[in-house]
Amino acid sequence: MTRCFRIINELEADGVDFISSHELGELLGCTPSQVRQDLSFFGKYGLSGFGYAVGLLHHDLVHVFGADRHFPAILVGVGNIGRELLENDVLQGCGYELLAAFDSSPAIIGREINGFTVRDAAELEEFLRETPTDAAALCVPEEAVGETAELLCGNGVRAIWNVSGGEMKLPWGTVREDLRLSDSLLSLGYRVKESLTRREAVGE
Amino acid sequence: MTRCFRIINELEADGVDFISSHELGELLGCTPSQVRQDLSFFGKYGLSGFGYAVGLLHHDLVHVFGADRHFPAILVGVGNIGRELLENDVLQGCGYELLAAFDSSPAIIGREINGFTVRDAAELEEFLRETPTDAAALCVPEEAVGETAELLCGNGVRAIWNVSGGEMKLPWGTVREDLRLSDSLLSLGYRVKESLTRREAVGE
Repeated sequence: MTRCFRIINELEADGVDFISSHELGELLGCTPSQVRQDLSFFGKYGLSGFGYAVGLLHHDLVHVFGADRHFPAILVGVGNIGRELLENDVLQGCGYELLAAFDSSPAIIGREINGFTVRDAAELEEFLRETPTDAAALCVPEEAVGETAELLCGNGVRAIWNVSGGEMKLPWGTVREDLRLSDSLLSLGYRVKESLTRREAVGE
Repeated sequence: MTRCFRIINELEADGVDFISSHELGELLGCTPSQVRQDLSFFGKYGLSGFGYAVGLLHHDLVHVFGADRHFPAILVGVGNIGRELLENDVLQGCGYELLAAFDSSPAIIGREINGFTVRDAAELEEFLRETPTDAAALCVPEEAVGETAELLCGNGVRAIWNVSGGEMKLPWGTVREDLRLSDSLLSLGYRVKESLTRREAVGE
């Protein structure tokens, strides 16, 4: 559904009024009947002969994904990935309000990136005590994940997006999402191997 | 299973000989019986009273994930994400042999990063004609994804790892894996919203 939401976002931005389940299926790489089944879960958006009303669908999916909530969020760790998030407003584009970015490296603290002045990670705890913060994007080095996650959760952060590759244990009730580049790459490797094995078996 | 493989990798590197399904479940965040069920799929590794033989398990999982195949691979697009992959040997750590990195920006072409000199994307087609390449990590800007993927697949690349955020259509039979930062972030937002709604409902 996140992909569907993203595509509906793009259609809405492009000023498309209606889209058929067939066209939407093409964009999503699934069948028209899968599209109809999935969207019927959220309500009735289809108009026979016209397709789906993009504006209505967009309005409701924004609500479903909380993209209208502007969750106050911070970014911790401004390495390559953190910089990517900062430079391209990635958090802001997904319904978060980015409040501040932190790093512990003197080479990065104080630098301005896309309107944000990177703050000293030593000020993180004080910042969280003073500023209600729902979510944190964790982009610190792997070995710093556990400690940083503990500090965040101990100071009111309810949701952690861990893009650091490290493992973290969180208090019960914390919302988490772990994104690991290497997991995705291993999954590709598994399928490449299967595909090559099949080709070898048929002597290709 | 990719997570399990990563953890077994780490245990092997740390010189651990045996691990119980209970301990492995703790690390993976699942029950011991789930661990036993999942691993029984690949063979018999458990020794009653000792747990799993980490070395054996590692050896076989390396094979399952093709991490011993050293798929020849290239990197296209050396922005923030591409740089992260280059600097940290991410592809090499997942069973790929990185042959070269390409970019089209004059500011980046010729720069050396972690032993790789970034090559001009204009040479990509020639390179692929001369060098058998199984896989490509695609880290170009969103709007360049379609065209680049077409060039890659038209010149023998069988697997595309798309980390660019854009959409691509690939020839039938191409192995693909799409990793989108924003999909993961939207998924977190959905659950943050659900969690906040529940808290509001009980007046927390």
